[in-house]
This record gives sequence, C-alpha cells and structure tokens, in this order.
Amino acid sequence: MHRFFLLVSALVATTTLSADTTTIAVAQRSWAELSGRDNWEGLLDPLDADLRRAVIRYGELAQATSDAFIGDPASPYAGASRYAPGAFLHRTQAPDADAYRVTRFLYATSSARVPVPDTFITRPAPPGAWSAESNWMGYVAVATDAGAARLGRRDIVVAWRGTKRAVEWADDLDITLVPATGVVGPGPGWSQPAVHRGFLSVYASRNSTSRFNKQSAREQVLTEVRRLLDAYKGENCSITLTGHSLGAALSTLTAIDIVANGLNVRGRSNPNDTVPVTAIVFGSPRVGDDQFKKAFDSSSTPGSGARLLRVRNAPDIVPTILPAAFYRDVGVELLLDTRKSPHLKKPGPGPAAWHNLECYLHGVAGTKGDGDGAGFGLEVDRDVALVNKEVDALSDDYPVPAAWWVERNKGMTRDVKSGRWVLQDHEEGNLAM
Amino acid sequence: MHRFFLLVSALVATTTLSADTTTIAVAQRSWAELSGRDNWEGLLDPLDADLRRAVIRYGELAQATSDAFIGDPASPYAGASRYAPGAFLHRTQAPDADAYRVTRFLYATSSARVPVPDTFITRPAPPGAWSAESNWMGYVAVATDAGAARLGRRDIVVAWRGTKRAVEWADDLDITLVPATGVVGPGPGWSQPAVHRGFLSVYASRNSTSRFNKQSAREQVLTEVRRLLDAYKGENCSITLTGHSLGAALSTLTAIDIVANGLNVRGRSNPNDTVPVTAIVFGSPRVGDDQFKKAFDSSSTPGSGARLLRVRNAPDIVPTILPAAFYRDVGVELLLDTRKSPHLKKPGPGPAAWHNLECYLHGVAGTKGDGDGAGFGLEVDRDVALVNKEVDALSDDYPVPAAWWVERNKGMTRDVKSGRWVLQDHEEGNLAM
Repeated sequence: MHRFFLLVSALVATTTLSADTTTIAVAQRSWAELSGRDNWEGLLDPLDADLRRAVIRYGELAQATSDAFIGDPASPYAGASRYAPGAFLHRTQAPDADAYRVTRFLYATSSARVPVPDTFITRPAPPGAWSAESNWMGYVAVATDAGAARLGRRDIVVAWRGTKRAVEWADDLDITLVPATGVVGPGPGWSQPAVHRGFLSVYASRNSTSRFNKQSAREQVLTEVRRLLDAYKGENCSITLTGHSLGAALSTLTAIDIVANGLNVRGRSNPNDTVPVTAIVFGSPRVGDDQFKKAFDSSSTPGSGARLLRVRNAPDIVPTILPAAFYRDVGVELLLDTRKSPHLKKPGPGPAAWHNLECYLHGVAGTKGDGDGAGFGLEVDRDVALVNKEVDALSDDYPVPAAWWVERNKGMTRDVKSGRWVLQDHEEGNLAM
Repeated sequence: MHRFFLLVSALVATTTLSADTTTIAVAQRSWAELSGRDNWEGLLDPLDADLRRAVIRYGELAQATSDAFIGDPASPYAGASRYAPGAFLHRTQAPDADAYRVTRFLYATSSARVPVPDTFITRPAPPGAWSAESNWMGYVAVATDAGAARLGRRDIVVAWRGTKRAVEWADDLDITLVPATGVVGPGPGWSQPAVHRGFLSVYASRNSTSRFNKQSAREQVLTEVRRLLDAYKGENCSITLTGHSLGAALSTLTAIDIVANGLNVRGRSNPNDTVPVTAIVFGSPRVGDDQFKKAFDSSSTPGSGARLLRVRNAPDIVPTILPAAFYRDVGVELLLDTRKSPHLKKPGPGPAAWHNLECYLHGVAGTKGDGDGAGFGLEVDRDVALVNKEVDALSDDYPVPAAWWVERNKGMTRDVKSGRWVLQDHEEGNLAM
C-alpha cells in the first residue's frame, strides 16, 4: 500500500515535469530510490529515465539561484537576489514553482583573515551599495501541500548559488586545507577531516558589521532546516541539497554537516527515524581531504547518512582544479560528456560553457554514457535554447542569441515624470532574510 | 511678422525638447539659422544654446536607427529593424516621436563586385533568414501637422544607420576612390568627384535577388524625398539628413546628390525656390577627394545648396581613418573633446566609446570648446545614463550597467503552450519598405 502510494506520486510528478518535455513517461522508481537510498546502484549506466528527470528538476532549482542573482557590479544591489522570496520560484520560472515555496534566503560572507577570491564574492562598485560584505547565496524551500502530495514526501530543498566565474578561479587558486571543525569531526576510522579554506570560509564565517551575516550561512541553513523539520514533524520528510560549482561545494559541506551533527535525526526516542539527506551537485570542485572522504562515505551508509550524486562533465576543468594529491572526490559520480552533443558548437564552445549549469542539464537530458562509443540523444526533450541562457554554446544553426538571460535594458527604466533613466533591477523585498 | 512666427515656433520646440532637460531656455535662433543658412557662423564657439539642442535632437533621430537595429547574427532578422514604421519613433523613444512620422524604411545592399566589409553589412547566421543581401539602413520621416507648426516648417528627415563596428573597420580598410557618377558630376571649377568605393556601393547598389533592393538605397531615398516635396508643395519645407559613422557618410552623399541633381528645386518657373538641404552628421569618415570637396563647398553657397555640420570628437579615430592625402573633409566642423567630461571613465573608455553616438551627444551637451583650457559642463542637462546605452563609458560612480540597451531576454520568450523558448525579437511589419 505504501509502495503503491509512492509509485502513484512519482507518476504524477513525472507528468507535471513533462511541461518541459514532449515525452510522457510512466515513472518506475520511487522517490527514495531516486534520492539515492541504494546509492543509485543500477540507475546510472544507462541513466535511468526517472533519475534523469529528477536530476534535471533539482538542477533547475539550483539554476534559479543563478537566474535571480544580480551580478552586474554597476548595480548597488550587485550580490543580492533580484526577486523577493514570495514569488521567487515563479519569477525564475522554475519548473516546480507550485510544488515548493521559498521559506528563507541564505547569505554568506567570508572571514577577513581568509583571502577569498572575487570570483566567490561579488562586490558592488557604486557608492551606497546594499552590502559590501555579504552576498545572497541561495534559499531554503519546502514542498507545498500540493507539492508534497505529488512528490510523495515533504521535501526540504536547499539550493546554493554557484559562481559564474569559477573557471577564472584557477588563476588565483588557493589550495589550503583547514580542519572542518564543527562541521565534521573525527570518527570511527578517520581523524579530523580537512576542507578547502575558501569554501569553509564562505560557509561558516560571520561578519558582525553586516546585518545579513550576524549568522553565518551555515547557521542560517541549519536553523531553517531544523525549524522546518519541527514544523512538519509528523510527516515523511526528505532534505535535498543542490548546487553548481561553488554551490556544489557548499551543498557537500551542508550534507555532511547535517548528518554529522544529527540534525536529521528526529526525536531521541527513536534514533533510527532519520530523514534522508541527499545532495545532487553539478560541476563540483573537490571539497576535502582523504579523511573528509572517509567521513563522508561512512555517513553514506544506506539508510543512515548523506547521499551525494556528483554530476561531472568530462571536459569541465573545475572538478579537477583542486589537486588529487590533497583532495578527494566524494559520493557517486554521474559522468557526462557534452562534447558528444550535436547541438553544441564544434569544435567546442570553451571552458566557461563546459562548466555552465544549463549545459550540464543539457548533458543530463542527452547522455548515453561517457564511453568512446557512446552517443548522445535527448532522452528528455529538454529545450535546447536553454543552453545559451548564460553562454554562447549552441550551434549557429539555432536562432538563439548568446547569453540571452537578461532583464529589459538590464533594469534601466525611464522615469515617466523626469524622463530620466534609472536602474530598477530588483523587486521590493529582495533583501529578505 | 514672419520672423516673429519663427521665433515663437522655435520657442515651443525648445520647451518640448526640455522633457530631456531641466533648463527651459528661450530660443534665440530661427530654424533657418540653426539649419546652417549662414553656415553656422558665430554659433559654434562658444556653442550656441539653441544649436546645441537642435544638434542633439537630430542626433537622437539618428540614434533611433541604432536603437531599432537587430545586430545579433543569431537572429534570422539580423540586419533588419526591430520595429515597424508606424510606431517606430515611439518604440525607440525618440524625443520627437510626435513631431515626425516615418513614411519609408530604407534598405541597402552592396555590389558583388565591391568588397564591402562585414562591419558595413550584417549577415544573419541561421538558415532561412529574412535577407542575405540587404540591410535595413534607415528611414525617411516627415513632420506631422503638429510638428510642422512647432518646428516652423515641414521638415523632411532622412536618418541613415551607422555601424557599431566602425572602429574595427580600420583593420580591413579599403581606401579606393571611384567616380561618383550620377551622384555628382564635374562642374564649374571641379572635375568628376571621386568618393569612397564602399560608401558608394552601399548607397547606390541594386540587387535583383533581394526584394528590398530592386531599388538602390539611393533610388529609395530620392524617390521618397521627391514624393514628400510634391505632397507638401504649397508649404515651407526643409530637408535634413542625419547619421553617425557610415550613416554620416551616406548623409553626405545624399546631401550632395539632392542638390547636384536639383531635387530640392521646386518648379521650373522659379528656380530660386529651393528647399534648404542640411546634413548634421556625427563621427563621419571622410567621403571623397579634393574634387568632391570643391563640388560640395560650391553647392554650399548660402541660400542655394547643401549645408553640412560635421560633429567630430577629438579622440575618435574614425573621422581620420581615410588618409588626408586622398580624402578631404567637407562642410563645417564642430569639434568636441569628450576626454574633458568628468562623467566618463578615466583615463578613457577606449576607441569604441569615443566613436559612440550617445557619447557624442553627451559631448554636444557639455562641450565648452576643444581648446586645452576649455572645460566641460552640461549646458543641456542631458541624462548621463544614456552614455552607457551601448558602451561602457560612464564612470563607476554611476549605478548604470554597461551597454544596457537590450530587449528582455534578447527577445527570447517562453511559449505558454509548448513551454519552449523562442526568439521573438521584432514586431509585425518590421520588414516594411
């Protein structure tokens, strides 16, 4: 009976998703399987149709953070979200706009003692900007009643924003590892894990001079996840982290943090009543050392800890920037190769496009495996125009401008009364916490 | 009485213009003076306040051709106008949207025998484009009844489009001079004038395979100007050509063409009843040789022929690209130096910005002469945000994005029914003749 319910929910969810597709497939997998209950065994090669759609769906929730981000340094709101939480998922045209509602925005800063590159934190140029220290870094959302019914459980989503300039990051690369104290400590079989200093700084730094980071990003996300688990304590819940690039690294930290600190364990009476924690990440740099890997893999024991699906595009340089001599990959890898796509420019659109999240999602839609003989074909009929949303990657045969995701006149609007052009690139309430 | 009427009209026109300004000045000059009846003697240094406003007004009518142009090669409509003639001046937010109406679009091609650089003609990349041979090149407009009342005469405006890539043009420069046969012949004191082969090719070429250029751009403009002069034969008329860069060269050719072929002479009974022909051009390359200059200057005798005010920004490289050993400047020069503007980036935003028309208009608004001691101050309080419309020239102190003139999502719109993103970057009727 329980199983039947899951199957029907998954089926309904698939039908909803196919607003973006022309194929309507009958879902075969339960949400728990798709969330890595069995560590995605048997689902990756060939890539399961339901998993393909689920990965794209979470990827689009991560992409929404990029779509909403004000990255133009000429804006006094550079580094903030363009939209307020209330209408956020509708404004970004996220596919699951009705299935989730955003409950909190997340902000990050970095410690003054840690040299975090400008590729991580956007700093507005004009005087009087909203914040010189903090960046909007993502959101927490929770399934609506209708969404929970469709999804088969009350899913809590944390989406961390990436950085569009991650490829440039290689130029001023800091490879320093620091102990992940507080996030994850030593355990049975591993000593204190160490992680990348820059990622940890963004995740865990406070700045008392910024009203957005009296709490660190870490404190903000943990508090909100705990609050939501309490609010829905009678319900079947899941926690899903998603992010691209820097956002993938933050998702990885959040996943192990939640599990290592038992945040997903409900009630002391029944320590086995744990809420599954799943990270679905794209273009992730390596995050920690070999002890971090041991801790992460241990926490990934089926039924207990965090599961991580790490989607990697073969030509993307970001996942291998941090040297394997000091850093280890964690979780389960889903390897794509978008060089095989006949829809993209030949010979290739370049490193920024290979790393771009929309190009990743195109790859997820079309991958037939990464082997030399493997082809490419859109198993999910995902709109190829999305490939060019932020980069110039689509073949010239398509009438689609490069980097087309932009506000009208970049937010410049003519004031009717004065006749002057003024920047109005954000909506009221965009600086919500 | 006649003089009084002109003065009042000019005053009203000035008040209307000041939608863009905060200063309301009382016009001192008649439209005939401002159109160069006396070759702008005594009006240029210091720059007369009325002339300043008049030059900006025509510059904005030229800028409208750039604002409307679809330049993205990914569009099947690349090289066409985004808007249809009917609402054209409103769509481009031209300041005189109610004073004029567009009566004809102008198209140009180039002879297959003449190697015209891609900086002159935009060629769309996708298959099935609107035209592989022709480009939309500008428009003819005529004063509405209300406009004519305000302006003091029935002004006929020809605005020729420039090329945003004129600065790159230096790389593959063709300096070949060819006889301007048909446009202007030998005369008293000069032999057959010669002009730049590329400009003449764009102006005078037909292409029987393009439905837009069964007639050359030249034939199109001359036919329309003649039609309008006939339609308003009982009225006081003027012909004003305006353009920037390549459009300035085409305006220069059109001006001498009209005068040399007597198109502005009304009725054989009174050959002295000539309609004044004025070109107000910005960032113009040189157009012809010394014989062309002689012909042009001769035709510029007060009261008879064409007058040309050539606005030049000192650091702009385009006006001096064609070598003075073979080419001559014509008309009267108004020299600016936007390096003096405190509103622009320091040390300088670069060659593309020095050549940009909006930066020129900023210079016209603020010039106090080009001398070393001369300062800069916005005598006309023109919105500085316009400086960044197409380039990145404004100082970082202003919260104005670079190159902000862009359609929402570059014209990509989501089809409600299919959920697909499709390019809709032009309005119905944009391919009008």
